[in-house]
Amino acid sequence: MPSYTAPVKDMQFVLHDVLKVAESDIPGYAELERDFTEAVLGEAGRLASEVLQPLNAVGDREGCRLENGVVYTPKGFREAFAQIREGGWNGLDLPEDYGGQGLPYVMGTAVGEMFVSANMALNMYQGLTHGAISAILAHGSDEQKRTFLPKMVSLEWTGTMNLTEPHAGTDLGMMRTRAEPQADGTFRISGQKIFISAGDHDLASNIIHLVLAKAPGGGEGTKGISLFIVPKILVNADGSLGPRNAVSVGKIEHKMGIHGNATCVMNYDGATGYLVGELHKGMRAMFTMMNEARLGVGLQGYAQAAVAYENALAYAKERLQGRDVTGVRNPGGPADPIIVHPDVRRNLMDQKSFVEGARAFTFWGASLIDAAHRRGDTAAEGLISLMTPVIKGFLTDKGFEMCVAAQQVYGGHGYIEEWGMSQFARDARIAMIYEGANGIQALDLVGRKLAQDGGRHVMAFFETVKAFIRENEGDEALGRDFLEPLKAASKDLQAAGMFFMQKGMKDPNAALAGSYDFMHMMGHVCLGLMWARMARAAMSALAAGRGDEGFLKAKVATGRYYMARHLPATAMHLRRIESGAEPVMALEAANF
Amino acid sequence: MPSYTAPVKDMQFVLHDVLKVAESDIPGYAELERDFTEAVLGEAGRLASEVLQPLNAVGDREGCRLENGVVYTPKGFREAFAQIREGGWNGLDLPEDYGGQGLPYVMGTAVGEMFVSANMALNMYQGLTHGAISAILAHGSDEQKRTFLPKMVSLEWTGTMNLTEPHAGTDLGMMRTRAEPQADGTFRISGQKIFISAGDHDLASNIIHLVLAKAPGGGEGTKGISLFIVPKILVNADGSLGPRNAVSVGKIEHKMGIHGNATCVMNYDGATGYLVGELHKGMRAMFTMMNEARLGVGLQGYAQAAVAYENALAYAKERLQGRDVTGVRNPGGPADPIIVHPDVRRNLMDQKSFVEGARAFTFWGASLIDAAHRRGDTAAEGLISLMTPVIKGFLTDKGFEMCVAAQQVYGGHGYIEEWGMSQFARDARIAMIYEGANGIQALDLVGRKLAQDGGRHVMAFFETVKAFIRENEGDEALGRDFLEPLKAASKDLQAAGMFFMQKGMKDPNAALAGSYDFMHMMGHVCLGLMWARMARAAMSALAAGRGDEGFLKAKVATGRYYMARHLPATAMHLRRIESGAEPVMALEAANF
Repeated sequence: MPSYTAPVKDMQFVLHDVLKVAESDIPGYAELERDFTEAVLGEAGRLASEVLQPLNAVGDREGCRLENGVVYTPKGFREAFAQIREGGWNGLDLPEDYGGQGLPYVMGTAVGEMFVSANMALNMYQGLTHGAISAILAHGSDEQKRTFLPKMVSLEWTGTMNLTEPHAGTDLGMMRTRAEPQADGTFRISGQKIFISAGDHDLASNIIHLVLAKAPGGGEGTKGISLFIVPKILVNADGSLGPRNAVSVGKIEHKMGIHGNATCVMNYDGATGYLVGELHKGMRAMFTMMNEARLGVGLQGYAQAAVAYENALAYAKERLQGRDVTGVRNPGGPADPIIVHPDVRRNLMDQKSFVEGARAFTFWGASLIDAAHRRGDTAAEGLISLMTPVIKGFLTDKGFEMCVAAQQVYGGHGYIEEWGMSQFARDARIAMIYEGANGIQALDLVGRKLAQDGGRHVMAFFETVKAFIRENEGDEALGRDFLEPLKAASKDLQAAGMFFMQKGMKDPNAALAGSYDFMHMMGHVCLGLMWARMARAAMSALAAGRGDEGFLKAKVATGRYYMARHLPATAMHLRRIESGAEPVMALEAANF
Repeated sequence: MPSYTAPVKDMQFVLHDVLKVAESDIPGYAELERDFTEAVLGEAGRLASEVLQPLNAVGDREGCRLENGVVYTPKGFREAFAQIREGGWNGLDLPEDYGGQGLPYVMGTAVGEMFVSANMALNMYQGLTHGAISAILAHGSDEQKRTFLPKMVSLEWTGTMNLTEPHAGTDLGMMRTRAEPQADGTFRISGQKIFISAGDHDLASNIIHLVLAKAPGGGEGTKGISLFIVPKILVNADGSLGPRNAVSVGKIEHKMGIHGNATCVMNYDGATGYLVGELHKGMRAMFTMMNEARLGVGLQGYAQAAVAYENALAYAKERLQGRDVTGVRNPGGPADPIIVHPDVRRNLMDQKSFVEGARAFTFWGASLIDAAHRRGDTAAEGLISLMTPVIKGFLTDKGFEMCVAAQQVYGGHGYIEEWGMSQFARDARIAMIYEGANGIQALDLVGRKLAQDGGRHVMAFFETVKAFIRENEGDEALGRDFLEPLKAASKDLQAAGMFFMQKGMKDPNAALAGSYDFMHMMGHVCLGLMWARMARAAMSALAAGRGDEGFLKAKVATGRYYMARHLPATAMHLRRIESGAEPVMALEAANF
């Protein structure tokens, strides 16, 4: 059975040595001193390891069940969820006005990683709530905030997002769910939504569904869409629970993974709904939820890889099989631990360098969100908006790939459910799909974000990379192993951007055919930048004689691995992109 | 629910236009006329589509069950297996002396692909039998052949391979199963074997286990290993079934996929075993089984991708979502089919170009085996021995990746078990692990096969590529799109081989750290060669006005896609390889 140990030391390194949060002028960051964040992360880590993780396999095995219209979560989930609630973890980075603790988002992200690594399915009940809260915070009326937020922040109630219908996934304009305005200002919501994560369960006394629906008069396509609050149980004026709303669970899906989370078909049969924000402006409100959710999904990708790696590493150190070709390492045993074998080590280094790079990337992204929200930094907002599809698409693709790699370390045992490695891969698989399948992320990046605001954000991104290289130009130790590969990869990325600009004007397919490659290229450049920053931080700590020497040297060595073995992928992606649309589009659909 | 249509036309193209089997001088090939192979493939395809495929989801859902020591396969498996038996399919490429039809191995391979695509778990009961037959054919005594082969060829009995023990997988030298010689020449086998595919079931009246065990006096490690026949039910001198042998099923494993195949823990408690071949030479005999099994596993990798692709393609043509950016394609509908979107098409082309390339590669490999077995062609034997780890490792890695890609086309529905796409990925996953995990294949390739017979086989491989390029040098149509990329990729592969030779002498880790990349590089070169051969065949058929124009043009277009978008991977692999052992080995195990 797998175990989980929260990577507090690695997180502290990113927060303090790389991002230097306590020195930042972002409001609220000054209090993020080393001791304080260590205490928070330590506490969250204990909950993750001791309470959430032991239920991960239980959730997978038991799944959720629907009985007489009621969804029951796996054994132990209620008690564990109560501990998340009682610890106030959901409100960690939510406003104090509604009962939260008001810490920066970067802290919520770090804690989120731990909870997701420990038990992704269980954490989703909280994660969806967090997204729904953000939407209400950004677009809800004062009354809606007063009515719903305190109980959602405290996790007394949870939230959901209802977008997809059987025939309308990516293309929300085709949705059929209707909202009929009523004389009292409410709406009657009717229709069917599918793939609703945490759609129903027994963990909270009420569920606040955020539902997209079409109200009359909005026009065709996505223009007619509005966002509604549809509580499972109606809320009286005094805040107490009233009668059951006309919303019910049609079925729960039998999925490849995240069995502990109830993925529901939700039926709305004239349910009472409350408009959120402006009529017919629902897509904008939904994007608030989706952007946060996309970061959260990117995090799921690498967080599953993190726990899978932890276990693969432990197995590689214990499993005795074969001998080191350069000389016996474990003369007292019948064989050497498999970590001595170069290809096993290659596999582990792939995982380690991805997970640690992805963590730094995600934390950096979270700090940009803090900069945007807490001090109105529009440049930071632009940059994170550009990188959101990369965090979602690249980290979930690679995160899944690394779960598969971790499974491989176990040989045949990796395929047996009892050992738990299959679950990491099966759970991680969904992250490539939901909140916009990764192809849609690539489309968002290349079709929308690159050109946004006249290309200002992508130029700012390149300037960030260049500035780092300039600042460290004279540093020989960093130069050959980090700056040179980063420069080369960044140059490839720029060349791809140029290709899109030149060809994409005449033929949008020339850009779109290369969009997926571009997303991956940019992911490598981002991780390359993070590794260069981590290496510099580790090297200066080493030079100053600060910190744990073995740990810091391992950071440098892991970074060198990523630069040497993964950044060369950008040249391949560039060549694919430059082959243009023709090879991709040549075949008529009929000739496939 | 997925469907399956056997790719008879594609197979015929490979057999007749590319390999030109009927014109070959390999004994038995002359009768492989177009009409004949079409009839065989058509018949096999019908069985696959109509009988085997509908049970694929049933097998996944129900799995096998162990009750009172007896394993029951899923509903319908018995009847379907009886149809395979009655059709004589198992004996298709087995010797007529034992009831087979004596057709070439390449035909067994083509039929095998269909059966695996349709129902991998069910086909394994037959596949393992085939491997066991090969071992007995190669190493068994005449009496053993007479006793066991006719009933195994006819599938009245099935076979298994028993290698792995809980603490001994790759490192078979550590095995503990013992064989005690008896006065009557038999042995008493005692020990526990795990991961025994098709280890027990209700499909046949007897099961012939081939078991590796250590007999006294053989020395340490693998030297002491011998191979034994251990029937589930002992066979009387007259061929009738006698008493039950002391072999039992400890449990069946709960796995990520191939639920329809019983993966058993087998307990041997002083079971009667018959020595196969020479005492203490069991590893050699086992390799006979394993080499065939490895080709069969490579086939599983791409066969799962083939059926996953077929379904993803159908979905992409039906699912309406969004509009073609270059202009509406389906004005009568609410949206265009998603196959219009460049990134969906990129995904489909990845799958299509892989599957068709892999099929040609595998059939070519099978024809080399026929050349080796049927006319004693040692060069062919050397070449297939070199390529076996590539077929196993590369085709299963990519096959799984393509199943995941096919699942992605379905969006959220790809994650719901009901739609069947998850099963393809879960079933395909095992192929990367069993019969030697893919890291072991890479080790076999670089650590053993490259240098085998003084490097003669790898030189012959490069000569095969060069000869093709030379022969077609003047062909402009082929030149730019096929020969140039093939030349470049082959040069990268040679450079990697040179690097290994130069560095590997001093430091074997320098070669081993790059072994996985080399395996993938070589896979790309092999598929590149196959695509160049297929393109030439299609172009000459087009020039001669033979065949289906749309089909042939699609072959050329698909090949151009593979060359343009996948062969550039070789340069990346070369750069990784040339970064050497240092980045991989730098970290001490304690600092991970």
